[in-house]
Amino acid sequence: MSDSRDTGLTLDPRWDANGLITAVVGDIAGQVLMVAHMNADALRATIESGEAVFWSRSRQELWRKGATSGNTMRVREIRIDCDQDAVWLIVDAAGPACHTGEATCFFRRVVGDRLERVE
Amino acid sequence: MSDSRDTGLTLDPRWDANGLITAVVGDIAGQVLMVAHMNADALRATIESGEAVFWSRSRQELWRKGATSGNTMRVREIRIDCDQDAVWLIVDAAGPACHTGEATCFFRRVVGDRLERVE
Repeated sequence: MSDSRDTGLTLDPRWDANGLITAVVGDIAGQVLMVAHMNADALRATIESGEAVFWSRSRQELWRKGATSGNTMRVREIRIDCDQDAVWLIVDAAGPACHTGEATCFFRRVVGDRLERVE
Repeated sequence: MSDSRDTGLTLDPRWDANGLITAVVGDIAGQVLMVAHMNADALRATIESGEAVFWSRSRQELWRKGATSGNTMRVREIRIDCDQDAVWLIVDAAGPACHTGEATCFFRRVVGDRLERVE
């Protein structure tokens, strides 16, 4: 099989118009913790440091998760999807992933047109 | 606490400039299967039908997962993140999530600047 982006073994991220890919962050138990974005520098920094580094779209700067809160994320594995526009980081989180103090940003479920807290 | 978007119980998705939110799809075992997008119609159709419906950015149309392949996804739960610009669907997948025939689109891990298959 040819070394195409969707089945081959070459890292060849498909950056969007803003130079970003989506980063899904989960823990070893299979809980999704957060969704963020990475540019090429953030992906490289994550690979090289073994800690999660994102691109902050609001602040337009590299964002080493936990740099201010101390809630860093040690990266066990980086997986990439077929079209290489999304990565799935499997991490050990040193504390809450969410700015609200919740362990995961996904602490509510959708029920009809309302939300309820996940216990 | 006030019913704000990030802690309240009102469904109030933060659509991006293209009217989309990110949809992370995982299974009950905690495997991330794919990342896709939803507009308001796709989210409503998913809530109402209990099957995953996305917005295809390439085809610019609603995309009922499995409509052609038969590999539908029954939605057990929809979770939404703090700023309501991403949902996490926990699904039972009737077949491979990936167009390559793999169970998950995330079938490769990043090792340095190369990829390797996850066994």
